[in-house]
Amino acid sequence: MGFWKNLFGGSETSSEPNKASTEAYTFDGAKEKVGGNFRIYFTTDREIDLYDLEELCDAVGWSRRPLRKVRKAIQHSFLVVSVWAVRGKRRRLIGFSRATSDHAFNATIWDVVVHPDYQGKGLGKALMNYTIKKLRKDDISNITLFADPQVVDFYRLLGFMPDPEGIKGMFWYPN
Amino acid sequence: MGFWKNLFGGSETSSEPNKASTEAYTFDGAKEKVGGNFRIYFTTDREIDLYDLEELCDAVGWSRRPLRKVRKAIQHSFLVVSVWAVRGKRRRLIGFSRATSDHAFNATIWDVVVHPDYQGKGLGKALMNYTIKKLRKDDISNITLFADPQVVDFYRLLGFMPDPEGIKGMFWYPN
Repeated sequence: MGFWKNLFGGSETSSEPNKASTEAYTFDGAKEKVGGNFRIYFTTDREIDLYDLEELCDAVGWSRRPLRKVRKAIQHSFLVVSVWAVRGKRRRLIGFSRATSDHAFNATIWDVVVHPDYQGKGLGKALMNYTIKKLRKDDISNITLFADPQVVDFYRLLGFMPDPEGIKGMFWYPN
Repeated sequence: MGFWKNLFGGSETSSEPNKASTEAYTFDGAKEKVGGNFRIYFTTDREIDLYDLEELCDAVGWSRRPLRKVRKAIQHSFLVVSVWAVRGKRRRLIGFSRATSDHAFNATIWDVVVHPDYQGKGLGKALMNYTIKKLRKDDISNITLFADPQVVDFYRLLGFMPDPEGIKGMFWYPN
């Protein structure tokens, strides 16, 4: 896990889908800078302030989306992962991913984002590994995503293969 | 729609997701062969005998999947479309597709199948157009799928584009 070390790996008690669980990680890269009063945790809890999420997506330059639809998408995603940085009594949303699924065979991961202040330290990798672990725990065997060109190599390093056996990701556009 | 003509296009009364609706089509290609006592219809009703579905998938050579998981996948798909041929009082499952979705932005179409006896007559195209129409009606703007190499051109003709702007479909494989 590179910079990341799972502190509470044994603390999860549920394998039910949609039941939230939380894991804390040490953030060795930042700890030296900010001292011991700092931690990062990953959670599948869906109670995310949509303005926090919008701020995170703004920070990476994504187009804004109607919050009403974002709320619906989160509600109907199979898995929602958020990453929080905690300093003293303040917490900040610094990462996010979610997946749609049929709860049986397939899952597709969407909206993977890490705040620019925390990029380049292995957090994206940790977020994806956490997301994959959760999907595998729910017995999903076919994990897919659609990667922008600049992140294809990032996902490749995590075990994702583009166009395996010639299978093509395709997008529908109105004729 | 080629061979297909929508007979009851105005009969749909609901725009709620997950509410079943049915449409009948004439099957001009076959009508001449079998006489007037034949019709084909498309429905989003999920009451599908899983053995009928297994028989259809067997007919196109797909690997068998545990029915328990197939049932769960159908239950948790956003949209399920089945195509039935009716001759007199008998009906037969001849086509199927389904889609996962976040109910807001994205849908991914899976398990598109047409029985070999009914291939090459435009039924696959009609099934896909029906599936797309249903997703668009529920305000889904991003419709995606993963196409095997031999059907990429089929989907291209329906308006699906492979790797738009370099976006790559990727599949995760355990390291």
